[in-house]
Amino acid sequence: MSHPKPVDSMVYPRYSEIATFLRYPHIPDVRGLDVAIVGVPFDTAAGYRVGTRLGPRAIRHHSSQVRLHHPIHDVTVHEAIRIADYGDVRTSPFEIERTFDWITEEFDRIYAQGCRTIAVGGDHGITYPILRAVARHHGPVALVQIDSHTDTHDVQFGYKLTHATPFRRAHEAGLIEPRKVMQVGIRGSLFYPDDLKWSKEHYRMVPAQEVHRRGMDEIVAEMRALVGTAPLYLSFDIDGLDPSCAPGTGVPEIGGLTTWQAMQLVYGLVGTNLVGADLVEVSPPCDANDITSIVAAQLLFEIASVFAVNKIAANKRG
Amino acid sequence: MSHPKPVDSMVYPRYSEIATFLRYPHIPDVRGLDVAIVGVPFDTAAGYRVGTRLGPRAIRHHSSQVRLHHPIHDVTVHEAIRIADYGDVRTSPFEIERTFDWITEEFDRIYAQGCRTIAVGGDHGITYPILRAVARHHGPVALVQIDSHTDTHDVQFGYKLTHATPFRRAHEAGLIEPRKVMQVGIRGSLFYPDDLKWSKEHYRMVPAQEVHRRGMDEIVAEMRALVGTAPLYLSFDIDGLDPSCAPGTGVPEIGGLTTWQAMQLVYGLVGTNLVGADLVEVSPPCDANDITSIVAAQLLFEIASVFAVNKIAANKRG
Amino acid sequence: MSHPKPVDSMVYPRYSEIATFLRYPHIPDVRGLDVAIVGVPFDTAAGYRVGTRLGPRAIRHHSSQVRLHHPIHDVTVHEAIRIADYGDVRTSPFEIERTFDWITEEFDRIYAQGCRTIAVGGDHGITYPILRAVARHHGPVALVQIDSHTDTHDVQFGYKLTHATPFRRAHEAGLIEPRKVMQVGIRGSLFYPDDLKWSKEHYRMVPAQEVHRRGMDEIVAEMRALVGTAPLYLSFDIDGLDPSCAPGTGVPEIGGLTTWQAMQLVYGLVGTNLVGADLVEVSPPCDANDITSIVAAQLLFEIASVFAVNKIAANKRG
Amino acid sequence: MSHPKPVDSMVYPRYSEIATFLRYPHIPDVRGLDVAIVGVPFDTAAGYRVGTRLGPRAIRHHSSQVRLHHPIHDVTVHEAIRIADYGDVRTSPFEIERTFDWITEEFDRIYAQGCRTIAVGGDHGITYPILRAVARHHGPVALVQIDSHTDTHDVQFGYKLTHATPFRRAHEAGLIEPRKVMQVGIRGSLFYPDDLKWSKEHYRMVPAQEVHRRGMDEIVAEMRALVGTAPLYLSFDIDGLDPSCAPGTGVPEIGGLTTWQAMQLVYGLVGTNLVGADLVEVSPPCDANDITSIVAAQLLFEIASVFAVNKIAANKRG
Amino acid sequence: MSHPKPVDSMVYPRYSEIATFLRYPHIPDVRGLDVAIVGVPFDTAAGYRVGTRLGPRAIRHHSSQVRLHHPIHDVTVHEAIRIADYGDVRTSPFEIERTFDWITEEFDRIYAQGCRTIAVGGDHGITYPILRAVARHHGPVALVQIDSHTDTHDVQFGYKLTHATPFRRAHEAGLIEPRKVMQVGIRGSLFYPDDLKWSKEHYRMVPAQEVHRRGMDEIVAEMRALVGTAPLYLSFDIDGLDPSCAPGTGVPEIGGLTTWQAMQLVYGLVGTNLVGADLVEVSPPCDANDITSIVAAQLLFEIASVFAVNKIAANKRG
Amino acid sequence: MSHPKPVDSMVYPRYSEIATFLRYPHIPDVRGLDVAIVGVPFDTAAGYRVGTRLGPRAIRHHSSQVRLHHPIHDVTVHEAIRIADYGDVRTSPFEIERTFDWITEEFDRIYAQGCRTIAVGGDHGITYPILRAVARHHGPVALVQIDSHTDTHDVQFGYKLTHATPFRRAHEAGLIEPRKVMQVGIRGSLFYPDDLKWSKEHYRMVPAQEVHRRGMDEIVAEMRALVGTAPLYLSFDIDGLDPSCAPGTGVPEIGGLTTWQAMQLVYGLVGTNLVGADLVEVSPPCDANDITSIVAAQLLFEIASVFAVNKIAANKRG
Repeated sequence: MSHPKPVDSMVYPRYSEIATFLRYPHIPDVRGLDVAIVGVPFDTAAGYRVGTRLGPRAIRHHSSQVRLHHPIHDVTVHEAIRIADYGDVRTSPFEIERTFDWITEEFDRIYAQGCRTIAVGGDHGITYPILRAVARHHGPVALVQIDSHTDTHDVQFGYKLTHATPFRRAHEAGLIEPRKVMQVGIRGSLFYPDDLKWSKEHYRMVPAQEVHRRGMDEIVAEMRALVGTAPLYLSFDIDGLDPSCAPGTGVPEIGGLTTWQAMQLVYGLVGTNLVGADLVEVSPPCDANDITSIVAAQLLFEIASVFAVNKIAANKRG
Repeated sequence: MSHPKPVDSMVYPRYSEIATFLRYPHIPDVRGLDVAIVGVPFDTAAGYRVGTRLGPRAIRHHSSQVRLHHPIHDVTVHEAIRIADYGDVRTSPFEIERTFDWITEEFDRIYAQGCRTIAVGGDHGITYPILRAVARHHGPVALVQIDSHTDTHDVQFGYKLTHATPFRRAHEAGLIEPRKVMQVGIRGSLFYPDDLKWSKEHYRMVPAQEVHRRGMDEIVAEMRALVGTAPLYLSFDIDGLDPSCAPGTGVPEIGGLTTWQAMQLVYGLVGTNLVGADLVEVSPPCDANDITSIVAAQLLFEIASVFAVNKIAANKRG
Repeated sequence: MSHPKPVDSMVYPRYSEIATFLRYPHIPDVRGLDVAIVGVPFDTAAGYRVGTRLGPRAIRHHSSQVRLHHPIHDVTVHEAIRIADYGDVRTSPFEIERTFDWITEEFDRIYAQGCRTIAVGGDHGITYPILRAVARHHGPVALVQIDSHTDTHDVQFGYKLTHATPFRRAHEAGLIEPRKVMQVGIRGSLFYPDDLKWSKEHYRMVPAQEVHRRGMDEIVAEMRALVGTAPLYLSFDIDGLDPSCAPGTGVPEIGGLTTWQAMQLVYGLVGTNLVGADLVEVSPPCDANDITSIVAAQLLFEIASVFAVNKIAANKRG
Repeated sequence: MSHPKPVDSMVYPRYSEIATFLRYPHIPDVRGLDVAIVGVPFDTAAGYRVGTRLGPRAIRHHSSQVRLHHPIHDVTVHEAIRIADYGDVRTSPFEIERTFDWITEEFDRIYAQGCRTIAVGGDHGITYPILRAVARHHGPVALVQIDSHTDTHDVQFGYKLTHATPFRRAHEAGLIEPRKVMQVGIRGSLFYPDDLKWSKEHYRMVPAQEVHRRGMDEIVAEMRALVGTAPLYLSFDIDGLDPSCAPGTGVPEIGGLTTWQAMQLVYGLVGTNLVGADLVEVSPPCDANDITSIVAAQLLFEIASVFAVNKIAANKRG
Repeated sequence: MSHPKPVDSMVYPRYSEIATFLRYPHIPDVRGLDVAIVGVPFDTAAGYRVGTRLGPRAIRHHSSQVRLHHPIHDVTVHEAIRIADYGDVRTSPFEIERTFDWITEEFDRIYAQGCRTIAVGGDHGITYPILRAVARHHGPVALVQIDSHTDTHDVQFGYKLTHATPFRRAHEAGLIEPRKVMQVGIRGSLFYPDDLKWSKEHYRMVPAQEVHRRGMDEIVAEMRALVGTAPLYLSFDIDGLDPSCAPGTGVPEIGGLTTWQAMQLVYGLVGTNLVGADLVEVSPPCDANDITSIVAAQLLFEIASVFAVNKIAANKRG
Repeated sequence: MSHPKPVDSMVYPRYSEIATFLRYPHIPDVRGLDVAIVGVPFDTAAGYRVGTRLGPRAIRHHSSQVRLHHPIHDVTVHEAIRIADYGDVRTSPFEIERTFDWITEEFDRIYAQGCRTIAVGGDHGITYPILRAVARHHGPVALVQIDSHTDTHDVQFGYKLTHATPFRRAHEAGLIEPRKVMQVGIRGSLFYPDDLKWSKEHYRMVPAQEVHRRGMDEIVAEMRALVGTAPLYLSFDIDGLDPSCAPGTGVPEIGGLTTWQAMQLVYGLVGTNLVGADLVEVSPPCDANDITSIVAAQLLFEIASVFAVNKIAANKRG
């Protein structure tokens, strides 16, 4: 398979043409692809403010701004990897469990082709059904989670499958390797005193204040040591960023990461065995004139760039 | 029970104090009340754009603008009827069926006290569980529905309980008297050619264009003849209004009603046996600087005024 | 004095240059002017939502869109009359009475030069101090008020000088000729049952519903008969318009006038002895992307055009 | 060629998947198509506020709301005609003349295949290069223009090809049949007294006030008599609508058409020989939470429906 | 008195029910309360952009997001202290002096019950009348002020009681202990060269740049030494934050504090004798989709948490 | 010439009167002025999102907030230098080359009077024609550019004069001294791998990450050494700031500068031979409730203050 070509921004201005992720072509058949960017427009698992069902479209629109080459990694992403916009998975706004099954099935089919994914949410609930698919093909994965919340609750309103529970469910289902989990940027008030206890016991939880006090370089070093060469999944909840950087999310929390800190962390994934990623909780209705969608689109490119750099390194290792 | 007193806008400016519907006091115990205004912050049954879960709060906030006396009916609402803000019913954003059961139970308890309700949604799906409660106490009701959509679909995404189906479900359950149903303002494109067929066969469906061509006075006259003295339920979907009047809703449709036309219709309810009402589909995230919430707050007062006028007339009839 | 020249929109695009009313030059000395457009950025007399202090600037900005010639009156305004942007009068946001005195003094100086004014508010409270100045030079005036509220309250929060009281104060001070007052577009809920009583007794109050039912042409005919040749003041509260047309105001009321209806009324002022006018209650913070400021800017031109047409007619009668 | 199928909104919720016009598939090769919807994201010809370059994307996004079947025409559009989203034509924001040439060339290629077009702008300047292509294949066309401005200026800032001049240029180039031109909704202030003279002399210009006074039914009847069976082009400038209905445009003018009036006019095109259409001047940055894009998306469906109905009638005539 | 219980967010989703501060119950009678959160919706003392009269409502609404337990202090606030939403104090938008008297009287009554307060403004002018009440019960207080402006002007527009003067008036009235005042985050242009002179002479003024250069830890240490065990009042003007963190305020100034820096400072209040606090100048009309209200709501919880921690420590000390 | 006096904010509140830059008077004749602030409302050279044509007006409006004296430099700007608002230069939105010629001519006339300029854009394309004028009078200048993009492309869409090319064109034309150019804040994805090559070879390019890692103090020191005493031009593209600080720009890039970092850099210009400056790419339609215009207005004052301080120092050196 030749490398899919993005729309040429030298011919079609970046505000023009049908909007796909990063202007990569829409290819719903992943055979031969290295990475598929997959929209998951689902927000029924959100317990507070909704709107992330509109995330994939807004990010598609604003990702047209992004260009092709990463200056720090010195990589032209679509030339290093075969990457495309898969379109969206099937969802129903009325039924969480059923939609989660559809998500797992569709990601399972993608991973079965040897393709890796960057999922664009949608609320954080979607990470659990995605991990079900990823783990089928890569086994229990290491996890780097950028987030203000641990999302390790047991239930919400008596319900098990919500955006507050994915990393509890995934643990129970054996989808992640608990000793290789790092949660970065955790902060914000708690429903109950013990809300963080489970995370502290099972995972390496890095509160936002630890990042501010120690500096992200140290956190990155620790993260790289922790995940080693295990198959790694990155779950980037946009509310890991400070509200000043990402107002457009359902549950923003003050004292968060700057985009520069987040970029440092993503740069740190170079050299890991990244097998999947997601970018979730961008809620256009909560946003301020789409700035969060713009930020997310650029983070999407940062993540795609890591896949590209890692692929080049893998090719060199041969 | 003495008449509950609203916050005095001559002492506390209308932007001040905790926001309740029309500044009426928060009284979760309806005993002795004539009318309870009940928030139903639920939007999981919405198939397109969400956000109406934030409707009750936005309408509470902007309903502070409304004053106490209706100039055309010449009635001071809270003196004519005992009316209060009930608060919100319990809901879970994750489960439609369960929430609908909670809604029915809670409205059942309210109606069991002889109290009538104005529900503030929330998406249109909530009307079905409300009607389940209303019909238990008043039998099958006549229905006046202001709407751009008939909401008589059978299923959506294979699911039976959505905001596109309440008037199909209610019919099946025998909650409404089909010969006494008028749907006013219907318009907009259809999924399938037969989408309106069911409504035309079972109900009196008045397309928006019929209103524009005949004038609302004629429609009102027909409506009054149709519903007669039967127990009547008013279901006001804000998207019955034109997008120019109510941009803040999930599925606006051009060619709709003006607020003046809607007011004419609500005035026409004076003298009917109105036993319940709702105002749904106000979506603050879809709104333009809250103008739809402001409009809705005033329509809420229009509806409350009808209860008040009717009560006075009933008292006179003694 | 030669006729002041507006910025040439054929040379400087309409989004360019320093923003003045209708691109007319800033001339703080009114000697020789026929009409001065005067900003009155004051909103401390507003009892509910504020923001009209920003009205003059927003209207200046968007009035650049307006061109020079009125197609229906067939008049090039700045060639028919000497008209300019006076700038703003002095105000203090902390003190109503003191500011009202300043307003009266400054308008007094303007009228003393034989110049007429179009005031751009600001809240409706400013009309009272303006009328104090107008009446000094023209005697008690006839009044056409476009508004949703009569603004004839006696007090608000125990205070006499608010945006709810100008036409009570003006009456008490003998500034207006009560038999020649028409209030058009009145509607909305009342604080007390008698709120409209005073207006009905003293003025010709035309509720919005009367306009909708009789048509504006009839209202205009009645208005012209009523005001005759008396010195006439036009007070245009933007909330006379329906919220769909003018969402950007502190206290919008449903069931209001369309811009076309308002334009009909303003056209009806041709041939009257219009000696002053104001356009008030445009609140940019309450607006939806400035659409109300845009509407107001065009109404400002409509009003200015009436002065121009009347001047030409007067010259012909000469 | 089989009929292209839209995304199934019963499977993929309407907020999901990559956004194309009305969810029709993206088909850049028009062979076999009856109608192509073509994005023209160009706004450099706009003399005041810009932003319509973002129009096609916003309308694509919100056109997902629209369903498949038109209830009044009783037609399922994509089954009556082969219709698709062509994508956008090539444009350069830096050069008007060059872009206009590209537009003509690309529309020429489309019309050469026997396909008709609905262009989605972009500013009104694009109609001229489109008409150059249309006239090559259909000869000088009749024209129905919904607009607040005649757009028949000779130059703007000394430049000939702007959004204020298309119907002057088209006339000079012999692209339109002047006796069969109707401009509906004209209003607003003028740069110079004679601005309307040219239009009045060459075209049938219907001011907005004439529509309000005579009613749209009469205008439609006159329009149908005027255009007869000539090849007809519809040019719909969204600012023909009142600002209350369409705030999101560069140069809104008060006193305009309601969406219902506009729909009446579009309905009136049934039975004409409509060979092309455009919908222009939707400016998302000027909009109020996308309501104008939503309105435009529905008007787009109205226009597409006319093509569909006319095709069925033509087939019947055989 | 038992501890008032907040609305249970496990039963009523956080977007539901009537909005009170932090979902604590509305208790207008403070007897038995440790801390009352008091709305002060007053902005007539603001000299530039208004809108903070809407602050308490917006913060109430968004404070529903906040949960119950503070992870760093490890305290469940409503269990450590008896805390409630008092409602709003009486205000009149027309009269500053009179309103200030009302504020003092009402806070006086609260403090007379041994209750402490967190006031939610409103503009910064309200701090002066609050301090009049606080000092009556606690004597002259130490003061920590987070702000971009010193607010120590003498007059504004010739008026003494504005949002630019509270800490001058409070000093004159002997309400604060000048040697124990720290103003943190000061920056921005000055009306006159000597604007900062008074503050420098009387208070410890920490410019924002000093925070950036020395780090907040050092400032906190100095602050704690300065205030010691004196009764302490915290006055948090939201414009102390950088505009990126808090755009929704009347007079934002670049180069300000991050939320993390502000949180460090608030953490530093643990162990002090905090007797009162306020959070002022949040202006919803100036905000970007309510992000500043969200930030403020979380800061409100941070402040409440300090009262809670200090209470526990005091109890331990016995 | 006496020093032009700004509007007195002690008399006319800052939201009042006609808006000019920093409330300085509008003086289109620069004779005797030290510094003219010149609006350049032109955005046709922007290749992605437009809207900066509205920048000068928005910045004028919000610059009223700024006061007169700079606390760190201890300078009252308008007393140290003769400074005024020149108004806008002539532009045509339809023709880039022609407009650039007009810009050069008008700045040439200004510099010919010995006056220096702060240009307020508009897009970054305007810097090239400004530099053509500056270099005529000061020779090739040193350049400090704050920006996320180098703007040294050769062509865009085959066109030479765009907002992506000014510093390539200026170099070719010999307008800048390449050894004395520093570009600070560069970041973001690239169209082609070599996009930064030209800048690295010709200029001192400081990526944003270098600022974050080394600290701005070091960069400033290097900058001062680099530019020495050469005539210096400052070009401040607002997108040099992080999107959190400046969302209102066409092409925001994550990982950017804080306002504090930018202020440090501008402070560093004290003592240089600053002969001209610009502030570009503020796009109100892309903004979040004008916060970027507010930030820009304050940066405008920062830049003006440098001219003032340098003038005082020059006078002392005599």
